[in-house]
Amino acid sequence: MMRGAGSPVTGALLGLLLERPSYGYELAQRVDARMGPAWRLTTSSIYPVLDRLESDQLIERAVKDLPGRSRQRERIMYHATDAAPDAFARWMQQPVRKEPIRTELLAKIAVARPEDVPALLAALDEYERSCLDLLAAAGSAPAPDDAWLGVVAGLVAEAADQHLRADLAWVALARRRLREFASESGR
Amino acid sequence: MMRGAGSPVTGALLGLLLERPSYGYELAQRVDARMGPAWRLTTSSIYPVLDRLESDQLIERAVKDLPGRSRQRERIMYHATDAAPDAFARWMQQPVRKEPIRTELLAKIAVARPEDVPALLAALDEYERSCLDLLAAAGSAPAPDDAWLGVVAGLVAEAADQHLRADLAWVALARRRLREFASESGR
Repeated sequence: MMRGAGSPVTGALLGLLLERPSYGYELAQRVDARMGPAWRLTTSSIYPVLDRLESDQLIERAVKDLPGRSRQRERIMYHATDAAPDAFARWMQQPVRKEPIRTELLAKIAVARPEDVPALLAALDEYERSCLDLLAAAGSAPAPDDAWLGVVAGLVAEAADQHLRADLAWVALARRRLREFASESGR
Repeated sequence: MMRGAGSPVTGALLGLLLERPSYGYELAQRVDARMGPAWRLTTSSIYPVLDRLESDQLIERAVKDLPGRSRQRERIMYHATDAAPDAFARWMQQPVRKEPIRTELLAKIAVARPEDVPALLAALDEYERSCLDLLAAAGSAPAPDDAWLGVVAGLVAEAADQHLRADLAWVALARRRLREFASESGR
């Protein structure tokens, strides 16, 4: 059983650990490489998910001694258990539908008053900058050697790219409409 | 102070209650009308947010007697407090940036194995259907009379529309690439 299957991170971590065992920091880097910068992983956010997967007996930890002169003597490695492949297959089969489109920016626009136009225009500028940053960061990922990984990495990158470009087109429209309203109403 | 400002629902509810007092069910309908079907509001989800706004002293409840022969004798009305306008203005000024793009479908694609192609194709079909349903539902909203509300309603609707169309274009691409991979690798 995989609880919290509502969180896409849970399935992603289980999938990566089925490929091979990892320790926390490396696993976070693997998520980051696989999901791209628009996923905006925070490394610390993976630990509660790992704890959950462990209490569901889908992964287990093993302490690995580190050889040599490393300051760090040991490392906690996470391994998928025998129950993991079935849970992963069930997750893969679960229905998916479009997630809600609920953003802070849309909430602000929806309940703003005409006097909030300057604040909205500033918010649009910031939002646009963060979209452009993510677009630029996404372009720098190297293509994987493996043909299958190339297909999935391409699709994940393409999803972020199209989503961000749609956002940027919408920001331009929003800015224009808000400015038009402000000038027509003499504000 | 408005805690939980990370949730766009908090600001939206406060904004609507600043416009006029409402009771829970009506408020949920107002959110739904303002944010559109892609926001996918569940009525029950507003109550914890109202409780939070109340404990932050930004709204307060008043019991209103219902006249006449209604089976329901009273109703809990929520009103914005004197502290609400400042909290709302601060929320409106807060920086916004692009939210993470983290979906169940992208997580599945990113960690899928070649043998998962049939499950992914089924997931793409479902996802596409839910996008089409939201697009169709969005088209039916009446335009508000008020010029300002017309501008903001148009922008919120346009955001969902462009986002869903980008999704649909991506689904078509994903389906094509997965089928190509499957046929080239003889699966």
